[in-house]
Amino acid sequence: MKVLFFISLFFGSLHSFAQLQRTIPLVQYVKPIIGTQRMGHTYPGATVPFGMVQLSPDTDTIPYEINGKYNPDVYKYCSGYQYDDNTIVGFSHTHFSGTGHSDLGDILIMPTVGAVKLNPGTADNPNSGFRSPYSHDNETVQAGYYKVLLNKGNITAELTATTRVGFHQYTFPKSNQSHIILDLVSGIYNYDGKNIWTVVHIINDSTLTGYRQTNGWARNRTVYFAIKFSKAFFQYGCKDFAKSYYNGFWGKFNQQKNFPDIAGRQIRMNFDFKTEDLEKIKVKVALSSVSMDGALKNMQAELPGWDFEKTRYDAQQAWDKELNKITIDGSRIEKENFYTAMYHAMINPTVYMDVDGSYKGLDQGVHTASGFTNYTTFSLWDTYRALHPLFTIIEPKKDIDMIKSMLAHYDQSPLHMLPIWSNSANDNWCMSGYHSVAVIADALIKNNVSGIDANKALDACVATARHRSYEDIGLYLDKGYIPVDKNPVGTSTTLEYAYDDWAIAQLAKKINRTDVYNEFIKRSQNYKNVFDTTLGFMHSKNSDGKFTKNFNPLSTNGQGFIEGNSWNYTLFVPQYPHQLINLMGGNKKFIAYLDTLFTMNLPESFFAETEDITREGIIGGYVHGNEPSHHVAYLYNYAGATYKTQERVRMILNMQYHNSPDGLGGNDDTGQMSAWYIFSSLGFYPVAPGSAVYAIGSPAVDGAVIHLDNNKSFIIEVKNQDDQNVYIQKIELNGKPLTGFELKHADIMKGGKLTFYMGDKPVK
Amino acid sequence: MKVLFFISLFFGSLHSFAQLQRTIPLVQYVKPIIGTQRMGHTYPGATVPFGMVQLSPDTDTIPYEINGKYNPDVYKYCSGYQYDDNTIVGFSHTHFSGTGHSDLGDILIMPTVGAVKLNPGTADNPNSGFRSPYSHDNETVQAGYYKVLLNKGNITAELTATTRVGFHQYTFPKSNQSHIILDLVSGIYNYDGKNIWTVVHIINDSTLTGYRQTNGWARNRTVYFAIKFSKAFFQYGCKDFAKSYYNGFWGKFNQQKNFPDIAGRQIRMNFDFKTEDLEKIKVKVALSSVSMDGALKNMQAELPGWDFEKTRYDAQQAWDKELNKITIDGSRIEKENFYTAMYHAMINPTVYMDVDGSYKGLDQGVHTASGFTNYTTFSLWDTYRALHPLFTIIEPKKDIDMIKSMLAHYDQSPLHMLPIWSNSANDNWCMSGYHSVAVIADALIKNNVSGIDANKALDACVATARHRSYEDIGLYLDKGYIPVDKNPVGTSTTLEYAYDDWAIAQLAKKINRTDVYNEFIKRSQNYKNVFDTTLGFMHSKNSDGKFTKNFNPLSTNGQGFIEGNSWNYTLFVPQYPHQLINLMGGNKKFIAYLDTLFTMNLPESFFAETEDITREGIIGGYVHGNEPSHHVAYLYNYAGATYKTQERVRMILNMQYHNSPDGLGGNDDTGQMSAWYIFSSLGFYPVAPGSAVYAIGSPAVDGAVIHLDNNKSFIIEVKNQDDQNVYIQKIELNGKPLTGFELKHADIMKGGKLTFYMGDKPVK
Repeated sequence: MKVLFFISLFFGSLHSFAQLQRTIPLVQYVKPIIGTQRMGHTYPGATVPFGMVQLSPDTDTIPYEINGKYNPDVYKYCSGYQYDDNTIVGFSHTHFSGTGHSDLGDILIMPTVGAVKLNPGTADNPNSGFRSPYSHDNETVQAGYYKVLLNKGNITAELTATTRVGFHQYTFPKSNQSHIILDLVSGIYNYDGKNIWTVVHIINDSTLTGYRQTNGWARNRTVYFAIKFSKAFFQYGCKDFAKSYYNGFWGKFNQQKNFPDIAGRQIRMNFDFKTEDLEKIKVKVALSSVSMDGALKNMQAELPGWDFEKTRYDAQQAWDKELNKITIDGSRIEKENFYTAMYHAMINPTVYMDVDGSYKGLDQGVHTASGFTNYTTFSLWDTYRALHPLFTIIEPKKDIDMIKSMLAHYDQSPLHMLPIWSNSANDNWCMSGYHSVAVIADALIKNNVSGIDANKALDACVATARHRSYEDIGLYLDKGYIPVDKNPVGTSTTLEYAYDDWAIAQLAKKINRTDVYNEFIKRSQNYKNVFDTTLGFMHSKNSDGKFTKNFNPLSTNGQGFIEGNSWNYTLFVPQYPHQLINLMGGNKKFIAYLDTLFTMNLPESFFAETEDITREGIIGGYVHGNEPSHHVAYLYNYAGATYKTQERVRMILNMQYHNSPDGLGGNDDTGQMSAWYIFSSLGFYPVAPGSAVYAIGSPAVDGAVIHLDNNKSFIIEVKNQDDQNVYIQKIELNGKPLTGFELKHADIMKGGKLTFYMGDKPVK
Repeated sequence: MKVLFFISLFFGSLHSFAQLQRTIPLVQYVKPIIGTQRMGHTYPGATVPFGMVQLSPDTDTIPYEINGKYNPDVYKYCSGYQYDDNTIVGFSHTHFSGTGHSDLGDILIMPTVGAVKLNPGTADNPNSGFRSPYSHDNETVQAGYYKVLLNKGNITAELTATTRVGFHQYTFPKSNQSHIILDLVSGIYNYDGKNIWTVVHIINDSTLTGYRQTNGWARNRTVYFAIKFSKAFFQYGCKDFAKSYYNGFWGKFNQQKNFPDIAGRQIRMNFDFKTEDLEKIKVKVALSSVSMDGALKNMQAELPGWDFEKTRYDAQQAWDKELNKITIDGSRIEKENFYTAMYHAMINPTVYMDVDGSYKGLDQGVHTASGFTNYTTFSLWDTYRALHPLFTIIEPKKDIDMIKSMLAHYDQSPLHMLPIWSNSANDNWCMSGYHSVAVIADALIKNNVSGIDANKALDACVATARHRSYEDIGLYLDKGYIPVDKNPVGTSTTLEYAYDDWAIAQLAKKINRTDVYNEFIKRSQNYKNVFDTTLGFMHSKNSDGKFTKNFNPLSTNGQGFIEGNSWNYTLFVPQYPHQLINLMGGNKKFIAYLDTLFTMNLPESFFAETEDITREGIIGGYVHGNEPSHHVAYLYNYAGATYKTQERVRMILNMQYHNSPDGLGGNDDTGQMSAWYIFSSLGFYPVAPGSAVYAIGSPAVDGAVIHLDNNKSFIIEVKNQDDQNVYIQKIELNGKPLTGFELKHADIMKGGKLTFYMGDKPVK
């Protein structure tokens, strides 16, 4: 009923409807706290869409290593915040959203009163340092705004942000010993030696600049900053917690007090104030990848004043604008899940350039982005699957800028490769494949892209895919697969390469590069080289061409697959679902295989041995909490069992996404989990990015409008949908029957109406 | 006789004489090997005048610390080279000339044959690493050119340089295993933790770029480089000798072989070649303070080709041009000493900007030098005394650029202070005082300077001298002296401040800033506050205003004086010699004091306890090997015993300077020792820079012409001078008697002739 009203309103007056929609505060449905418990790895703090600053509380900063060994507990703190923790160490300015390895947590700031403490203290004994207990009862978590009462000192902390500036507002009690601590030691995934170097220059009694250079997931990253306080500090102090070698000052300066030229490895500082009761001290922290001066310029351009409420309002309006790209009808719970997914999908990638367009490149030089916005934080093994395809619909211009950023990465990288995992002018080369090519092919095939030379883009894809010294591409080219005696995850990598090669072939075909097409369409068949027709599974081979012994399709350990087992990875031929079905014995056997996957009981050993997959993210043997199976529920379609896709998709939506802190079944992975939710709840999904079609699933909303950048709208009308009515009875596109359970990208982009007729009976 | 010929030639044809002089290869007299033995701390390698690159062999790179404690042997290696060593580790690109603490030694390159060794090995067992034995018999050391046979592998190494590019030429034997080692660990004064970070990008098979960031004497210094080989390497390797934390590659790359994107803390690399017998491989290494790209640009601009001989010729021509600023007549030995002193005087300060004018500032930002050349390496405690005064005569334009560099330093420094010891966009604040002010005052008072706002320069001097938190300036202002219970070298610092304050007052007077003059002329009297009229010595005071007990005027330990004792420092009132003489009881007592100083026997304990003063640098109790006494021999003049100045100066010239590797009696201190030699051998010396007059000594040359930038010449005619005839009988300036034993700067700069009539009898 709601849908009908909504739709009629729309048709009644397109303009006024749009106007109305634009002013609906969709921000109210965003719950950034979703995913902050267990392994969602999201953070609750303040950021704007694709913002360079992610200003968020860190509840612990535990070491990456203990006695020289990896500390597995560090994994909980990928985003700096764990919902179950009782203390906050401080508020730092950079965070990954939902990653499965981490970094960042730069420039931690904490307000305190009383004696200066320059160590964070422990969770068990927060009084041993500057950290404070807090309660979720006193916490407000919104898109673009975060507020918490710090019990120690009774200080209220509020956070908001612009693209490049974090904005703090601290309400102090009356005290002659009020402090703002600046901790440049703290970081996420910290180990001795991660901090390469730190500089702080005190410009005047309320302004400082500096930088922090780290050797983390990004091997060599520098974040420059500028900080302004709304009130002048009357003194300041500094301590370097690292050994200092040359101290040729002969006591010329007291470096610990009011010394304005600070450099060292492990720096913490205190800025001291006298405050009246309820006095607010505000702090602006601007970032830059380029220089301290760049950070100052960013602050001046984006946030010259001190109006916290206005900044918060602007941040939330920015979110509202992005959230309005897709408006849905549904219950409050559905809206909370949906708009939070939209929120999480539009945190990353992140802007990586100053207001004047300058940015640090992979060559460690300073470049100027000419005519585009430069981005980083490309977790491409995750995001090529659904997040970038989502952007081809709702953020096509930004997606093109992201591709331009990838091509700049290619140009500037000493390796001359497209990004694997672009991380602040570095590549951490995380996870398998070279999935930039899928993002590029997908966008260039789907949309009418201007400003990118498709031939040059294809050349970059080809050069990357021919880079023999990278991740055994040489072996892959020589043998058609990667032997697991050479590479312990060579089989899953072979499958991913074959898919990526197909995507390159599709782009080559589109621009009539027949030679490239022929080369890569042949390579795309390489998945067959690791399919064991005897066993009916993908099965690792050694260099001698023989399959490995001791095959266990359930195990994720030592079987040749990264973060997954053969049961799941056998289905990773998204480019050729029909070929795969044939290979696996036809529709019936294939459907049975899928059914077994979704209903099996995994042995306990699976969980013990598997990294990055949590119990909560699993349905039967199907792993939704990690990416390689994200297309799997949609494969029933290709075996003629579309109703099974429909029920599985709805089951996954119900089981894996909740509007609670523990609402995500696995790492959100910079928006990929959320993008899966968005697509699937709208009723379709990009099984093979690089094709211009989507597989139809089962819409979980009561209706939706996709507001396209071209000022057209694509309406998704959903009739008679509810938790039982998950089965599509028929589909109409612009009033005409749609068959084949595929939706063309072009049909979305030209605007129109897709009508799902739902019922509780499967249509077989 | 020689002089007469020389002079008559000059007057015969000014133009043709000048022409003739300009083509005389004065480079033949330069022996860069002078000072490389014992504690001269000079280096034998290739550099051009004031060059950014100092490419020189390092004979050892011993650690700054052993088991966490300072290793006193490191002091021998301030310049990287010790004449008595038998092995060469490699050739690095940056060296200080003659300093008493050190840094640099960046980007060490070594050619080898045979199996790759990526550690330097030991002097005892050079075969344990890549170092090689060598012999001085096979060594050629010239200004701008260095050649040595490396016994291991029979490789001839030749070095030359442009301002910003080091040029190597290696003649290899026939080998399939020829290597060029690139050692980015090696450095001078190296300790664990000195190397902050290193990056190398392999651009193609013969080009690489990178940077080395260090925490040394310069707390936070980055040297960017670009390297080109004349021949393509067929493979390369890399090893990081530091612990690597994140290794998220999962074996994606073999970082040890042909991996072009290198980053780490302790990097050494090998580049592999196949060579024919006597095949030359040339290597160009360009430096930049700004960026890797800047280094490439510097190479392209200064040394685009591969003509080693042409580059060597140009380097030596550049030296010849500088050496011709003063031409002397004298014996070959005199010329070797003199022109080597000229050479050592014109190595530092060093250019610190790219060919396009961009340079790293004290604020760690990139700036562009507009209309001047930016310099660094200001060892001002040393060089304000004679080196910069020498520049006011022979390099006035460069001296002004140096002052502009100091003012840029002031503008960019977070401390807003003029440099103390400017070290590659850092200040190491080494030694006492704020002697930039003396350099600035001296230049602005002496010469007609355009392009510098004298008021702004004075403001910078004043701000520096009022910087209360620096080296107890606050205490000095409050008490008129620095109590030694607060600062262990407070008494010598008090004396130095008082002199510097006088220099500021002189500048203020010149530009009619009466308020500043009054303030600083008063401060310049502060030397009296530490003069003990009872004892007749400078004597340290405690905070209570009382002189310390246990006074020992010979001891350098715990007496309140830095690198000197009260006997020497009592004479440090260069601004007021007559006041000092009165304070010390008049001419007779003062002369007796000086006589005692030059003839006393120091106790053995003096040498044990005294840093930076060697036995060789001492005459009686007079310490010529360190700077604070450099004016002392000239003080006799002010007590009416000019003949004693004359005989002492000649004695010092004879005893402290020799044309042999051990020819310097102490650290050359970036040219200060050499500048003393140049002035003194010409017959005059700047006792108090900031005044426009020089004290007359005793010329040791047979004649000289100072070729001024204004195209005028100042001729020094010396009649009847020899080792016995050291006493001035009379002096004429332009044919008229010169009395008062002072020479005005203006009289030099307007050109003319100074005639000394010498004899073997003192004129009392």
